[in-house]
This record gives sequence, structure tokens and C-alpha cells, in this order.
Amino acid sequence: MIQTPYYLIDRAKLARNMEIIDRLRTQSGAKALLALKCFATWPVFDQMREHMDGTTSSSLYELRLGREKFGRETHAYSVGWSDHEIAEAVGYADKIIFNSIGQLERFDNQSAQIERGLRLNPRFSTSGFDLADPARPFSRLGEWDQARIETVMDRISGFMIHYNCENADFDLFDRQLARIEEEFGGLLKRLKWVSLGGGIHFTGEGYPVDRLATRLRGFADRFGVQVYLEPGEAAITNAASLEVSVIDILNNGKDLAIVDSSVEAHMLDLLIYRQSAKMEVTGDHPYMICGKSCLAGDIFGEFSFPAPLSVGDRLSIADAAGYTMVKKNWFNGVKMPSIVVKELDGSLSVKREFGYEDYASSLG
Amino acid sequence: MIQTPYYLIDRAKLARNMEIIDRLRTQSGAKALLALKCFATWPVFDQMREHMDGTTSSSLYELRLGREKFGRETHAYSVGWSDHEIAEAVGYADKIIFNSIGQLERFDNQSAQIERGLRLNPRFSTSGFDLADPARPFSRLGEWDQARIETVMDRISGFMIHYNCENADFDLFDRQLARIEEEFGGLLKRLKWVSLGGGIHFTGEGYPVDRLATRLRGFADRFGVQVYLEPGEAAITNAASLEVSVIDILNNGKDLAIVDSSVEAHMLDLLIYRQSAKMEVTGDHPYMICGKSCLAGDIFGEFSFPAPLSVGDRLSIADAAGYTMVKKNWFNGVKMPSIVVKELDGSLSVKREFGYEDYASSLG
Repeated sequence: MIQTPYYLIDRAKLARNMEIIDRLRTQSGAKALLALKCFATWPVFDQMREHMDGTTSSSLYELRLGREKFGRETHAYSVGWSDHEIAEAVGYADKIIFNSIGQLERFDNQSAQIERGLRLNPRFSTSGFDLADPARPFSRLGEWDQARIETVMDRISGFMIHYNCENADFDLFDRQLARIEEEFGGLLKRLKWVSLGGGIHFTGEGYPVDRLATRLRGFADRFGVQVYLEPGEAAITNAASLEVSVIDILNNGKDLAIVDSSVEAHMLDLLIYRQSAKMEVTGDHPYMICGKSCLAGDIFGEFSFPAPLSVGDRLSIADAAGYTMVKKNWFNGVKMPSIVVKELDGSLSVKREFGYEDYASSLG
Repeated sequence: MIQTPYYLIDRAKLARNMEIIDRLRTQSGAKALLALKCFATWPVFDQMREHMDGTTSSSLYELRLGREKFGRETHAYSVGWSDHEIAEAVGYADKIIFNSIGQLERFDNQSAQIERGLRLNPRFSTSGFDLADPARPFSRLGEWDQARIETVMDRISGFMIHYNCENADFDLFDRQLARIEEEFGGLLKRLKWVSLGGGIHFTGEGYPVDRLATRLRGFADRFGVQVYLEPGEAAITNAASLEVSVIDILNNGKDLAIVDSSVEAHMLDLLIYRQSAKMEVTGDHPYMICGKSCLAGDIFGEFSFPAPLSVGDRLSIADAAGYTMVKKNWFNGVKMPSIVVKELDGSLSVKREFGYEDYASSLG
């Protein structure tokens, strides 16, 4: 039995998402690039590469990982490139997308040999969190002044417009895309490609994939552009869990179970966005499931189980693929979860274990 | 010139804190153990070990780091030990402190050859953040029921009571310690040692160190115990900065400067606690200083500079020692800051650089 904690990526569940992506690509003509900022666990890229057109990135290292571990079409985006990074970035990238006109101008000569794009900020989004809202006041994410953008149109062949965030509402997507068509149509028709970014939750239960495909094909035809999507969460949603063990049971007014993991160290977004974890359990025995770090608020959530919990019980925290492994950390020196893959034949492969030497070498 | 980003630990500033710790130890008789959960950058342990009695920990890996890299007295605490960890933990530890009676009983035989303690939760604290408040409702941090504690008094020689959090108010400390004396005095006088934990900000500007020393000596004498303190932030406060470079300047309603770092990846607590970074600058040129990750809210804060900023300018984010390096992560693949030490002669030593291979190996 594999020692907990570990992230468990299930290839069969991943395959379900990949099928939907394939269908959307075929029906819409859009290309799908994996957003590495959300999920970059390259031991399953062999499977994903058969169903996705490549990767997009948010830094030099993600870009290189996309080029070397995924291959196919490789888009390079970053909120800001450093002078010492740009030559290497251009060497890996099929397209480079600048966040600002200032960056495009600074690196104009050094990037001229590949296709270039600019991030367009439409000044609206679907984000429910100010923290994650690219259209928040004074946002640094992209350009919106059409007169200024006009001055660089001769140097770019596409836009990247990332404004959706876990958007499961097709009608909202449709309306917002119509706003983009109306406001920026004059520019769009002069481009070769448009990336609509990530955040469209088209692999969610009941999402009208066919309508999305039709809408994207219509957009592509109207402006004569190749459409790109950059699924992160949509590509891997529900494809992984965090497997943990109960190491102590307490009652301090409620029944508490402490597990050998930590929200802050292993599922950081739950802490940042003050959200509860998900567990697929029901029953009459409620417990608060707590992490083992020193943080008083290191709590996965409250769940009801079919029977009383005991030390040694294994629990499975659901929906642990996106924005987890990419931001795990050594807080408290809590053992980092191994990365384990459930193969299509049901066998488990341990792809990476982390040990004391990894911890010590993170600090000196 | 060392490439940014990097954490810069200044041994001269560290020496100032160490002097105060020495004075407090001498005057009070208390021992001071470095809390590795806050700061575990072992390349400066050579200096700290001359002024501190050892380390305390919150996991097996921290414990081992304390034993191997710091030495001296080594306390082992964890919110929960796993069965497979306990033998190794006991092997490294001078004292082991259990978070619960359940853990003490579970590992009674395996820990009997070393001194043992229990975490006492006095059910009050000085924390202003619910997230970090060990006395929050249903807290899992320690025991408080004296009748239950009584049942294990024959097996323990000390308590650990961690209930301060950045407490710069000596009078508040004094009053709360009096409550502990009053409520738990009957148990305290049967112990050999009491750790009062960390969170007492006695290295802060103007803190009455002499009064604290007198108070601690009085407490030790009254109950006949060796007092321990577990300074984390107090040991390293103001001893490090995060050095970054400006990589883009924008104006999206405000002047924005993007730097080659990220709050979420490199100074995570600013994001978790929704706080601004600190910079020691003044002037008439205000800028919002932004990180380079994809997160819309990746913002260090707003500061006014003596002159307009330009790409390539170097900025120094202050107060970057505690709870930063121990929880840095690879979010967005943003290059992790190197760890650099400013030696007492003013020279800079690069202790650790992180590169692409570190990033890639964090994911598979």
C-alpha cells in the first residue's frame, strides 16, 4: 500500500475530459492548449498530448516544460519577461504573447522571428473573486486602449483574451463574446488567431459543448481567425484526488480528525479563497477534517461519514488536480504528497516521492 | 551583480536580534529554541547556534533539520505523528511534545526513553487573525481539560503553551501569563519545564526586554521549572529582504511597476492575510508594485519613490525572513528567489540558486 499523503491522478477520469476536448476541437475548429499554470504534472502528458494541441505558459520555466515535456504547439505568455530571459523564451516558443505594449516594444527585435501576440483586456470578466479578476481596477493584465493597440497591429498576428474564470454558464460566455466582437471586431478581423484563454468550464456536468463549438466556429469564421482555448481546470477537473490518512481523533467541542496533510502546504487555494475541500462521503458521523500544520485554520472542511473514523483510516479529498501540485510547498516541513498515477488497467505508478533531502535543499 | 530575485539575509541585522536573545536568556534563565516553522534557512545556523539553545519543530523533517543542521537541544512537536514516523522522531529528539493525550497514549511505549511534554491550550491567545488563532473555537491545538491532563501527568515532564502571536504588548503578555498561573498553577508546579512558545515580539523596537526577563524568572522560580521560549519571527525580524527588479512599467489608471517576483510564490503570507509588503522608501512618485504571476491580485503594495521607476531598477522588499522561504513555491513556474547571505564584512554569498531542473522535478 502506498504511503500517504499522495496526489492520485486517474487516467480514466482524465480520459473523460480529453474526449470532450477532442469533440470540441473537432466541432469548433479551435485548438486547445493546456494551461500549465493550473496543471503541469508532466508524467501524464503522454496521454494529454494525444488530445490537446500543445501548451501555454506564464513563465520561462513553464514554457520550457511545455516545449520539452509536452511538445506540439508552444505558446509563451508572461506578465513580464526579463531581459535575460527573452532569447531563451523565443527559442522555445512558437508564438510569444506580450502582456503590454511596453514589453512588445522592448523585445521587438529579439522576438521578430516568431509570431507575436498581445494580451487584450476587455475590462470585464466572469470572476467572482476580486483576487483572481483580471478586470479588477488598475489591472496590470493586458492592454485595452484601441488607439494604443493600433500602433502595434503591424507587429502582431493575434490576441490573447483571458477573462473567464470557472465559467460554467454558456449564455454568459456567449454574451461576453458578443461584447468582444462588438467592441474589438475592427481589430479582430485583422488578426490571424485569437486565444480566448481559459476558465470556460466546458467539461463540467451538463455543459452544452455543442453550442460552445458552434459559437466558436461562428466567431472564427466571422473574423477569419484560428481560435485557441487554454483549458487548465477544464482539462483536469475531477481527475485527481489527495489521498490522506487519519493520524489523530480529538473532540474539542466537535469531533475532529487530523490527517497527514495540510491545506496550506498541499491544497493552497482552499486557504487563499477560504473554501472547503470536497469529499464524496455521506453518513451520520460528522467530523471536521484538519491538516497537521501548526496553522490554527488548517482545516479541509466538515464532512459526514458512514461510520466513526479511526486512526489509520484513509480519506480521499476530491478535485485535487488543478492549482494544487503546482503550488504545493514545504510549510512546516510536512511531507509533500507523492505523485501517483492510476493507470488505465487500474494499477498505481508512483511517479515522484519527496523526502527529507528535497526539504533540506529547498532552504540552502 | 547577483541576478534577482533573491532573499538577502543580513548577518549584521541578525546579530542585533541575537544580542537581545542573549540578554534575555542571561537575565531570565529561559532557554531559547528557534521555531523552524518560521525560519529554517540553515546556511545561517552557524551564527544563530551561538546565541540560541536549539530548535523546535512542527514535523519530522523540521525535527531532523534541527538535529542535523543546528544541533544543541532539539524539541520535537507535531500536531500529529504518523505511526511510521515516531521511532525516527524519538531518535532525533531531546524532548517530544504531543499535541493530544491520544497521541501520547498511542506512542507511550515508543517515546518512554526521552522526556515528554504535552501541548496545553489555555483557551485564549493574542492572535488578531482567526486563521492563526490557536484558541479559535474547536481548536485542535492542545489539551485544556485538567481532569484529563491529570491522567497523564505521571508520563510528562513539561507543557508547551503557544498562545502568543506577534504580541508586542508586554502588559498583555504579563496579564495572560498570570491567568495561566492562576488556572494551571496546580499542574505547573509538578513539571520540570514549561515552554511558553513563540509569538512574543521581544526584539521589536522599544520592547521592555528587562521586564520580560524579570517576569520569566519569577515564573520559573514560582513553579520550579525551566522556561523555554520558541522565537521564530522575533529571532529573524528585519534580518532579510526580498530583492527584485522592475521588468515593466504600465499605467492603467495608476502607475504600476511589475517586478520579477510574486507575492503568492515568494511572500505567501501577504496574500493569505491580505497584507501589504513593506518597503523603506519615501518620495513623490507613487507606484503599485505588482508581481509577475498570472494572479490578478499579485500585488506587493503601493509605495512612493523619490524618482520615477524604470525597467531594470532594483527594489528591496523589507521584512522578508519569517514565513517566506519556508513556504515559497513554484506557482506559475516563476523563478524561485536565490538565498543570499550578506556576511559581516559586507560581501554577498549565494547559498542556493534554484533553476529549471528544480521546477521540473517538483512535478514528476
